[in-house]
Amino acid sequence: MTPLAPAHTRGPVRVVGTGLLGASIGLGLRSLGVDVVLHDASPTALAMARDVGAGRLPEDGDDTLSLVVVAAPPDVTADLVVAELSAHPDAVVTDVASVKASVLRQVRDAVRDHAVLARYVGGHPMAGRERSGAVAARADLFAGRPWVLAPGPGVTAQAMAAVRDLATDLGAVPLTMSPEAHDEAVARVSHVPQVLASLVAARLLDSPDDAVALAGQGLRDVTRIAASDPSLWVQILGGNAGPVAEVLAALRDDLDAVLGALRSLAADGGAAGARATVARAIQAGNEGQARIPGKHGAPPTRYEVVTVLVPDRPGELGRLFTEMGEIGVNLEDLRLEHSPGQPVGLAEVSVVPGARALLEDELVKRGWTIAG
Amino acid sequence: MTPLAPAHTRGPVRVVGTGLLGASIGLGLRSLGVDVVLHDASPTALAMARDVGAGRLPEDGDDTLSLVVVAAPPDVTADLVVAELSAHPDAVVTDVASVKASVLRQVRDAVRDHAVLARYVGGHPMAGRERSGAVAARADLFAGRPWVLAPGPGVTAQAMAAVRDLATDLGAVPLTMSPEAHDEAVARVSHVPQVLASLVAARLLDSPDDAVALAGQGLRDVTRIAASDPSLWVQILGGNAGPVAEVLAALRDDLDAVLGALRSLAADGGAAGARATVARAIQAGNEGQARIPGKHGAPPTRYEVVTVLVPDRPGELGRLFTEMGEIGVNLEDLRLEHSPGQPVGLAEVSVVPGARALLEDELVKRGWTIAG
Repeated sequence: MTPLAPAHTRGPVRVVGTGLLGASIGLGLRSLGVDVVLHDASPTALAMARDVGAGRLPEDGDDTLSLVVVAAPPDVTADLVVAELSAHPDAVVTDVASVKASVLRQVRDAVRDHAVLARYVGGHPMAGRERSGAVAARADLFAGRPWVLAPGPGVTAQAMAAVRDLATDLGAVPLTMSPEAHDEAVARVSHVPQVLASLVAARLLDSPDDAVALAGQGLRDVTRIAASDPSLWVQILGGNAGPVAEVLAALRDDLDAVLGALRSLAADGGAAGARATVARAIQAGNEGQARIPGKHGAPPTRYEVVTVLVPDRPGELGRLFTEMGEIGVNLEDLRLEHSPGQPVGLAEVSVVPGARALLEDELVKRGWTIAG
Repeated sequence: MTPLAPAHTRGPVRVVGTGLLGASIGLGLRSLGVDVVLHDASPTALAMARDVGAGRLPEDGDDTLSLVVVAAPPDVTADLVVAELSAHPDAVVTDVASVKASVLRQVRDAVRDHAVLARYVGGHPMAGRERSGAVAARADLFAGRPWVLAPGPGVTAQAMAAVRDLATDLGAVPLTMSPEAHDEAVARVSHVPQVLASLVAARLLDSPDDAVALAGQGLRDVTRIAASDPSLWVQILGGNAGPVAEVLAALRDDLDAVLGALRSLAADGGAAGARATVARAIQAGNEGQARIPGKHGAPPTRYEVVTVLVPDRPGELGRLFTEMGEIGVNLEDLRLEHSPGQPVGLAEVSVVPGARALLEDELVKRGWTIAG
């Protein structure tokens, strides 16, 4: 990303842990000209991060650091934060772990001095990739993503500003929340969806092949994140066990209500209210889903979908979108759907409602087939 | 869709119920030159279907029908099938309801004559749209989608052939399963994912706004189908209550295991095996998700993802895909991601693993920014 303004972050910045997130932070800061000093317990990982350009190795004089970023797995984050606070008595220390209250609690258990604790600001950039390690790092990993700042009590304004500047310099959108509010939020928007995606996908394990062959885009969407790394998720779910358990328990109560209603319907056509119980669950899902922000964090919009048959050859989608550009209709969202035994794909193109008729007419004129 | 071969279906075909599916069947058959006679309990819906070109109104002589398609809501399908079998003693009768065993059971309870039952073949085209009614109908609604044939015992070969021809004429891929196997399959691949998507989305109802603001693509994917119509889903889930309850109960057992493990971790750092229980659930999700067929029903492939920053203007995605075509790399899948406060979108382009490095290099040469 081309910087629009000079960096506010002053170097050298020490990055502890040079996996995907740490190396991406290093790359992003380096692209702004900020000096970055790398550290990793693994010499191999450290050398890799240096080689991809995420920063340099430590030298004499690095004790003048003003910012340390701990970018390690959740289960070692607190220990590293404590060590860095002690080793760099003038530096602001932050981390990027996806759970915040348990890390802060461990840090506060180990560090009793309020003046030291005032230099630690927990953080959580809401970014990731399907690949890991410095080799997958990107200077733009955080572009446009929320970056939560979750300070404990007594944090200095200067420490907050340093971490906010880091997020902004890397193109992220800083948001401040308490560690508890953060953990409760990610339980709902990330951790519980992960658990349920995994549980739904696990139901396919003992399905016959011809049952799985009926899978459509709905199932693919619900289970996409079920491909996530078990060892990482054990750490995340373990580190946020209380809030995740609370949301899961509420979901389980809803599930039991639906299950009871369906059993009643299966046994004798349904006790009074069984259908209403099922309808209420689907209706509540409608209302919850409608709260999810749409494009660019704007309020959710109902787009209309135009489905176009696209031959399965390089360049055909390019032609489609080039012609959409010529027609002057902006693509709001896109989904590709594939079905067994067909040499075409279906491109489901979301557009603002007023543009649908125009787009369909113009695409048909240009020889495209509009499908259902 | 341009027909590649003349239709095998002989007209006139009677379509009972002229909503999205019935009118789309009519349109598809009409585009092949097959005579279609429409019927609907609602005169308004019937007139609308005729006006969009899905077929004509009944005339004298239509008693020579060879095929009747009942395309009505699940809860009235069986009654209509029974009436059509009686009214058209030479016709094959099929339906398109998304549940099959309960419909067949109701038909067999009402029709005791085996010779009559031999003319009924239940069907389920795996197709739909976000909009409903004849106005949303498309001749190509079924192109490339699975169309399940779920015959009861004693169905004639001629009846099977007629329904298989219908599916094939409309571009669908016919698959034969028992009604019970169909219902068990859709419980796993469609109905249970629907229930869980709704339950996960419902957990957002009492979240603060800043929690929902952290939503990412994972949550959007898991909950997309939670926007579905409650009244339709009450009929579908009610009509398949037994199989859905069975799969839900198994999922609830898995959920209870994870919940117990998380409560143990939250309370005292975890009993022996708590972390292993969580890891096993995520691992089982990995394995189940890997069974879902990929593009064109082929075995699932692990694609590599190239993420490109795309300015939010008409034509920019077109330029991207045109240039991908020039580079000669085929797009296997695509996901658009949007974040709060940024005037760019992220296009996550899936390509075969061998093509990733080439594509990234060539796109950077052409001025694109590759993001994380």
